[in-house]
Amino acid sequence: MLRILVLGAAAGGGLPQWNCNAINSASFWRGDQPLQAATQCSIAVTADGSSWALVNASPDIRAQIIARRELHPRAPEEYGLRDSPVRSVLLTNGDIDHIAGLLTLRERHAFDLFATAEIHRVLSGNPIFNALDPELVKRRETAPNAPFEIVPDLQAELFPVPGKVPLFLEGDAVVTDLIGEQTVGVRLSAADRTVFFIPGCARLTAELRDKLQQGDVLFFDGTVFHDDEMQREGVGQKTGRRMGHMPMSGDDGSLQAFRDIDIGRKIYIHINNTNPVWRPHSPERQEAEAAGWEIAFDGMEITL
Amino acid sequence: MLRILVLGAAAGGGLPQWNCNAINSASFWRGDQPLQAATQCSIAVTADGSSWALVNASPDIRAQIIARRELHPRAPEEYGLRDSPVRSVLLTNGDIDHIAGLLTLRERHAFDLFATAEIHRVLSGNPIFNALDPELVKRRETAPNAPFEIVPDLQAELFPVPGKVPLFLEGDAVVTDLIGEQTVGVRLSAADRTVFFIPGCARLTAELRDKLQQGDVLFFDGTVFHDDEMQREGVGQKTGRRMGHMPMSGDDGSLQAFRDIDIGRKIYIHINNTNPVWRPHSPERQEAEAAGWEIAFDGMEITL
Repeated sequence: MLRILVLGAAAGGGLPQWNCNAINSASFWRGDQPLQAATQCSIAVTADGSSWALVNASPDIRAQIIARRELHPRAPEEYGLRDSPVRSVLLTNGDIDHIAGLLTLRERHAFDLFATAEIHRVLSGNPIFNALDPELVKRRETAPNAPFEIVPDLQAELFPVPGKVPLFLEGDAVVTDLIGEQTVGVRLSAADRTVFFIPGCARLTAELRDKLQQGDVLFFDGTVFHDDEMQREGVGQKTGRRMGHMPMSGDDGSLQAFRDIDIGRKIYIHINNTNPVWRPHSPERQEAEAAGWEIAFDGMEITL
Repeated sequence: MLRILVLGAAAGGGLPQWNCNAINSASFWRGDQPLQAATQCSIAVTADGSSWALVNASPDIRAQIIARRELHPRAPEEYGLRDSPVRSVLLTNGDIDHIAGLLTLRERHAFDLFATAEIHRVLSGNPIFNALDPELVKRRETAPNAPFEIVPDLQAELFPVPGKVPLFLEGDAVVTDLIGEQTVGVRLSAADRTVFFIPGCARLTAELRDKLQQGDVLFFDGTVFHDDEMQREGVGQKTGRRMGHMPMSGDDGSLQAFRDIDIGRKIYIHINNTNPVWRPHSPERQEAEAAGWEIAFDGMEITL
């Protein structure tokens, strides 16, 4: 078995975003017919139904865990007064929406924290993460393209994808589609099933496209539909690519890039609150669905 | 007017705490008759009903803002596509449950961030807080005993209270009731009304007790009822005092210390998930209420 729970489907800020008045977030503030809310991007995975790994730890992780029975502490008679089925956490980059939740996972719970050396350096550069007691939380450096067991019977393998360093570490000159250890995708496999999880990807290389052909399920960067979406919505100047995310639309967008790829299910995740695909009847949603894509949502479950 | 919203009444971890199976948290995991949930400690204050200050930024701040209409972005026609009535944030110490929410308050919103020099050093020692663009978020050093306007018509004044450095900065030798700039209380005043907010206090000095006599409302450290509560509940070894919090009970607990003090309303806040006062019919709750204390809860509102 390979089972996945989508804890949060939204990109940084979530839906609604606390200070955003663009059309999607504003539907919540007005209160009439709001969209379905979405928390920041994280998934939980298991192969045995009892030991879980989190891929990324979003700032919403406390509410995400409370919302999912599978991630609650188990019976105290058997498991004791401190318990969690969460046995490991894997990080795909050092962005706040992927690491801030680590600060909630303190409170003396033992788990393995997997990430590349470069992502671990983001954590070690911030003493606040010492809240994770090193006696209990083991920081494990994971090399790209080297499979490891993330929880029992579930293999994970990281691979570099084009991306950039976290915003809070950007200097004056930013390379937005660097291929290195700062942004990775994850291959998750159990028995003969394979799921790819790539919440951030600035550009689809031929090599990466070939790799993904093997998958039963692909979760892919759905941050923006239009590269200039922030400008269109009037809430920012940065393009999707400047933020390290290829758009869905356009000649080199993900809809076109994956048009003829052989993958069981293609699911957009890490969707920004500005993205029109959040609106069930938008032309953009229809275009994505017509191209065979699903739109992830909080509470989505997949069992292979 | 001086108006206060309790955004979160719980100490670090919240109620329930993600990995806790002690009696209060376990009521949520079993699902039968759970207690009222509580997020981590933060209040919002205003004197004009339109500009708000947050005192402490808890890890739950995104959900706390979404839950309170008063803190939502206002009409986009008038206030634009990026808006928040939150104009400032004040920190009372550098603990994770008081500062991690700053990471959610990114997204290009301008506000003033007030704290003592020592608390600002905790932030500047962690580059992740550079997510708050210094062009927009002004870090303002606030000296103890020097009143300042935190939002229009609302004065704030910090004063040292006995406490300790954040857990993640503890060295081998920890002074748990140091009086300095690392833990402060806040005096909030508008017109002729005064509210004191002291979510952490290791010991009540005579000077501090005298100061509080002036208050219409006192919010005070309600972390633990029993100093040895973590041991009693089987979830830890540390005493309340070791964590920098005086207990409610005992000869030098807060119930005794404030027995004859002249304050309009006394309200416990920053209540740990192990504290029996969360249970409406517990003897400890009855003892606190008989001594004139109220127990804060998420959604509590006070208007003076």
